[in-house]
Amino acid sequence: MKNYKIIRIRNNSKELLKDPVTEEISLSIVVQNVKLTTLLCSPVNIKDLVIGYLYTSGIIQKFEDIKKIDIDKKKWQGSVDLVNDKIMKELVFRKIQPVGCGKGIQLYSDSDDIYNQKNDSQLIIEAPIILSFMKDFKNISETFLKTGGVHSAAFANKDNIIVFREDIGRHNAIDKIIGNMILKNKSLNDKMILTSGRISSEVLLKIQRCGVPIVVSKSAPTNIAIDTCTKNGITLIGFARGNRMNIYSGEQRIKV
Amino acid sequence: MKNYKIIRIRNNSKELLKDPVTEEISLSIVVQNVKLTTLLCSPVNIKDLVIGYLYTSGIIQKFEDIKKIDIDKKKWQGSVDLVNDKIMKELVFRKIQPVGCGKGIQLYSDSDDIYNQKNDSQLIIEAPIILSFMKDFKNISETFLKTGGVHSAAFANKDNIIVFREDIGRHNAIDKIIGNMILKNKSLNDKMILTSGRISSEVLLKIQRCGVPIVVSKSAPTNIAIDTCTKNGITLIGFARGNRMNIYSGEQRIKV
Repeated sequence: MKNYKIIRIRNNSKELLKDPVTEEISLSIVVQNVKLTTLLCSPVNIKDLVIGYLYTSGIIQKFEDIKKIDIDKKKWQGSVDLVNDKIMKELVFRKIQPVGCGKGIQLYSDSDDIYNQKNDSQLIIEAPIILSFMKDFKNISETFLKTGGVHSAAFANKDNIIVFREDIGRHNAIDKIIGNMILKNKSLNDKMILTSGRISSEVLLKIQRCGVPIVVSKSAPTNIAIDTCTKNGITLIGFARGNRMNIYSGEQRIKV
Repeated sequence: MKNYKIIRIRNNSKELLKDPVTEEISLSIVVQNVKLTTLLCSPVNIKDLVIGYLYTSGIIQKFEDIKKIDIDKKKWQGSVDLVNDKIMKELVFRKIQPVGCGKGIQLYSDSDDIYNQKNDSQLIIEAPIILSFMKDFKNISETFLKTGGVHSAAFANKDNIIVFREDIGRHNAIDKIIGNMILKNKSLNDKMILTSGRISSEVLLKIQRCGVPIVVSKSAPTNIAIDTCTKNGITLIGFARGNRMNIYSGEQRIKV
């Protein structure tokens, strides 16, 4: 955990304080010198994670299948040598079907201009309006009320929620609202995104791509999400529930 | 939403009822006849999802970049032709770095024996013990209490929680506890898994792999998770909180 300076708004009054934030790292898993995957994860119990990942992926059957395991906490890399290296040859043969949550492929590159631009949107929203949207947002989500199994996301302007979508994957819910706005050819840089899900770096890549200046979550952000928003001038709000919210960056857009 | 017969336990008494469950599908996205990815998602607003996914992945910049889009709701496939097909050639060149939550690669195959075996564990647990574990489980999660940003998972036997791990990714938390048990060479088919996260098909693949007979979640399962547990004789419990829980399959292992 890292401590970040945040602005907490409660009952429409401001308080400056330090708050602990979940850390996120990018862990490479390398088997027999082949880079198998990159996991976004928390920086604790990495050895357990590497072993468990290899086991649940079917690469090892027991701990003794591992000849050597090395965890590099500077590069965040887990390197594994197997007793039997046939398995890796089989893997190359079955070769590799990305699955799940739109996270199978990374088509962005850090050098893309879009990820280095400062968001200069002049949008300003009043804190009570955001909280009232979050309340509406929660009420709209009938599926959630019935099954408890989905995430929701919405675009709003100063006056209304414009589009609302749900999905079992929080990434998919974000992609759905963005897709709907793209389909309707609507501008995105004068609106805000509301989401039930946590804000991690991969969600933020999607948000950066569309130039939205304000992101409001019912849940927590990670440290990387906060750092990216600070760098790129995006207003990031977490724990927006009831009469309170935390502002992690870009407070100039929020009027109290 | 689909309705499933469930057993609800509340204050240690049973009730049989029908409950709506979130649906999960496997959606292929095909661009210029190349299969780009498979998303696990909810079966609604698929067109929005495909467009949003292509946009946030940097494949299109605007809706007009799409020449043709076709959503096949029988095969669950979204097929897209682009106005400019250079982009796909670039993609092949940048080629495809799996990212996130251990979901970048699928190394399992449906035909693997392990996914067709019936779980015949004789483990029986009393419902109040499960609920008391879930209470402990919640209390252990200090990081969550402080930051609200992580999922947790644990292995328990009849008497105790044995290992407890946290991660920003719910898949990673599961991999961590499994990895720890593998590392210690402990048996898994006489224990249960507790998790804060939703039970979707990909979490279940991990659970099947290790032969655990009982899975308990604070959150919701998807329809595919329920169907798989029913087929494979795994006890699946959701919404285990306070004095209640829902049993979706394998009730013979839960004593009330």
